[in-house]
Amino acid sequence: MPDPFVVVGGDAAGLSAASKCKREAPDREVVVFEKGQWVSYAHCGEPYFVKGEVDKLEDLLSLTPEDIAERDIDLHRGHEVVAVDTDAETVTVEGDDERYEQPYGDLLLATGARALTDPIEGSDRDGAFAIHGLDAAAAARAYLLDPAEDALADVGGEAFVDAERVERYGAMEPPETVAIVGGGYVGVEMAEALTAHDLDVHLFQRSEHVLTPFGEAVAGVVEDHLREQGVALHLNTEVARLRGADGRVAALECTDGTELEIDMAVVGVGVEPNTNLVEGTDIDTGESGAISTDDRGRTSTEGVYAAGDCAEDRHTVTGEPAWVPLGLTANRAGRAIGATVAGDPTPTGDIAGTAVVKAFEQECGRAGLLPEAAAEAGFDPVSETITAGSRSGYYPGAAETTVTLVADRESERLLGGTIVGTDRAAVRIDILATALEGDMTVGELERTDLAYAPPFSPVWDPVLVAAKVLHGRL
Amino acid sequence: MPDPFVVVGGDAAGLSAASKCKREAPDREVVVFEKGQWVSYAHCGEPYFVKGEVDKLEDLLSLTPEDIAERDIDLHRGHEVVAVDTDAETVTVEGDDERYEQPYGDLLLATGARALTDPIEGSDRDGAFAIHGLDAAAAARAYLLDPAEDALADVGGEAFVDAERVERYGAMEPPETVAIVGGGYVGVEMAEALTAHDLDVHLFQRSEHVLTPFGEAVAGVVEDHLREQGVALHLNTEVARLRGADGRVAALECTDGTELEIDMAVVGVGVEPNTNLVEGTDIDTGESGAISTDDRGRTSTEGVYAAGDCAEDRHTVTGEPAWVPLGLTANRAGRAIGATVAGDPTPTGDIAGTAVVKAFEQECGRAGLLPEAAAEAGFDPVSETITAGSRSGYYPGAAETTVTLVADRESERLLGGTIVGTDRAAVRIDILATALEGDMTVGELERTDLAYAPPFSPVWDPVLVAAKVLHGRL
Repeated sequence: MPDPFVVVGGDAAGLSAASKCKREAPDREVVVFEKGQWVSYAHCGEPYFVKGEVDKLEDLLSLTPEDIAERDIDLHRGHEVVAVDTDAETVTVEGDDERYEQPYGDLLLATGARALTDPIEGSDRDGAFAIHGLDAAAAARAYLLDPAEDALADVGGEAFVDAERVERYGAMEPPETVAIVGGGYVGVEMAEALTAHDLDVHLFQRSEHVLTPFGEAVAGVVEDHLREQGVALHLNTEVARLRGADGRVAALECTDGTELEIDMAVVGVGVEPNTNLVEGTDIDTGESGAISTDDRGRTSTEGVYAAGDCAEDRHTVTGEPAWVPLGLTANRAGRAIGATVAGDPTPTGDIAGTAVVKAFEQECGRAGLLPEAAAEAGFDPVSETITAGSRSGYYPGAAETTVTLVADRESERLLGGTIVGTDRAAVRIDILATALEGDMTVGELERTDLAYAPPFSPVWDPVLVAAKVLHGRL
Repeated sequence: MPDPFVVVGGDAAGLSAASKCKREAPDREVVVFEKGQWVSYAHCGEPYFVKGEVDKLEDLLSLTPEDIAERDIDLHRGHEVVAVDTDAETVTVEGDDERYEQPYGDLLLATGARALTDPIEGSDRDGAFAIHGLDAAAAARAYLLDPAEDALADVGGEAFVDAERVERYGAMEPPETVAIVGGGYVGVEMAEALTAHDLDVHLFQRSEHVLTPFGEAVAGVVEDHLREQGVALHLNTEVARLRGADGRVAALECTDGTELEIDMAVVGVGVEPNTNLVEGTDIDTGESGAISTDDRGRTSTEGVYAAGDCAEDRHTVTGEPAWVPLGLTANRAGRAIGATVAGDPTPTGDIAGTAVVKAFEQECGRAGLLPEAAAEAGFDPVSETITAGSRSGYYPGAAETTVTLVADRESERLLGGTIVGTDRAAVRIDILATALEGDMTVGELERTDLAYAPPFSPVWDPVLVAAKVLHGRL
């Protein structure tokens, strides 16, 4: 019997690995340490919880601690791993007023990522939130409530929630004006969530466009749509600090000197991998700063794996390391590592950087490399953008759908693309994700026999129209 | 200057070819003969026109005769090609009380398919319709109208429509009970259309399940759904004849002797390719009865092409000839042939048999080979069916989605699959169509980086869940 499989971090990657290992090798001891109280929760659902479309915090849990116990996983919540000794093959654990060494046979680092707040001075003021974690989401929703309502009952999650913080925010007068700092996923989703609460919503983006990873064609459509929905967009505008009195946020100040009175702020300027634990060890990190892994999730150190938002994967198109902290990647890599440590070597799979985001009614998708990244990776990118209908023009519900495709000039290989539209646009990005996994050329994509029926697609799906136009240019 | 490019048939394949040829080689003479009055119309929209979701017949036209004239295509409506002489390189044309020989340089046969009605005796009675062509659709909708209304104005299409037929049906009392004979695409779509008109709808299917090409998992869901919507399903029931007096349909009689009083019938028991023109010529037909073509749409005879519902293509999975008369195939093959005859040799593309159909709220999709066809093609098929949510479970609108995947046991290659569900299920079949075009294995599909965001998909898309389960069995 080998030493236990020890997992650091009890969210998507960690618990996927623990569960899969237990399923494949029921006799193997599996120990999971989670420094917080929450485990196995749906981070991506937080904006919809703040919006109110998700009722209670516990709805966002994939597994309860009871489910985990039933799987015979030895879960320790409120226990932080503070050091790794790869020679002794132990981790140092702190929790319940004790500190001890835990030996491991295999070790998985699944420590996730943390929201960047340092760039914005004053992000720690009351009324300012980084929507990263259920406690922050709970506090934000409590803040939006009328003080006469029972905030703790409203947010749920009683066994885990930071009750003091929820009650403190619940007692405050609800905010009226919010500044969202950063126009990425969280920023755009929170603009929708807070507009639904009738707040006056201002979105600040340092660069020229929101949703940078989705490219300009998507950004243009989304920006028009955000404005139509009443969001005040401040593009090319860098936020310097959040100011206020008594520790509260009361104003936002931009680097150009303009100011805005606010009573709430959402700071979503990015995340960084939690890699403190590997500093000073022989576990390598990559250029991104995240932990380097091979195609089975193994780090540079024997017996140590990494997965999820703290780890790099390989990019489907370039074959090079890439750090794209998203949910499927974490779950899939965790599951594969769980199988591997149970004796069934399994590849973690590559990542195409496939992502979708809802911006009010607009559905946005992206996959692979857009022109700038493609050029950096040594390709000679050619790109075309088209707009076509989502259904037969005569069928009710047809909506404009904008597709961008990028290909390599010489090999004609598809490198990536984006999509935006209100009618089933998001799911269509999976066509590109699949074509990227299959190393397809634009010509092959153009000749793919996609589905056609008037309620669902025109004869030439927007993706095929884009492939036709791009192929014609190659 | 070569002799003209002559096209027989003015619908999807024919006009796609004519338009593309003119665009690529504007000086080439392009002549199109269409025996009927309608050209370039959306056959697939007919059930929605009968339902009333599409307002007028002209909404179903992709191109008007004026559009076609603007493209400098020499279109002759009401002109039938009655013979082909491949030695003389001429076709014999009848129309406008004349009969003449038209020489060709290149010839495209795009004569389409016709509805099979012979198996059902009495299908020619008044009140019985094969919904195949705009005149039949117009007559059916006129029949549903109150006689006090102006049927001709209601259906539109005044320049082309068979006005006498529309007015005759418009004057009749609307039907109350309809028998739909055949549970294929047309049958299922017409069940929805006629239920919307509050008819008492009976659907007769000779075999055990509706939507045979979609397999049992889809059929099971659709049959339950049809019954919920009030459709009386008669499975394993063969219709022998339609009876009545004065040329009208008044009753349906099954081979088991049961009878049903009806005042409308829709006969949708299949189509067959229109290949009369090649009988007695050296132009070969395949096993399916449709015209054989190579990967550029060339028939066995030099200078003669075929495309659309009258022609075979190659199957994406088997590489063998296949006859799957659907819209994208026709448009794509026509367009490729137009490019080829204009001097730019272009492959027509393979067909995966990708198809989607709406059955009230259920969206059904299929692609590739299901187990029976896979075994016939020499594979050793393994199949799994799963049901999973279409979105994160906590997000509103998540719906059960059933996916079947089929793979070859030895090579682990994906061979085909089906999907059914109410939430964006149809568009998801394109993932399978793309994976088939890319010759992907089930393992590759399982590791494809598909999109995830709570409003659009769970972390593990239903397609990935199915791939995981099937891969686990290989």
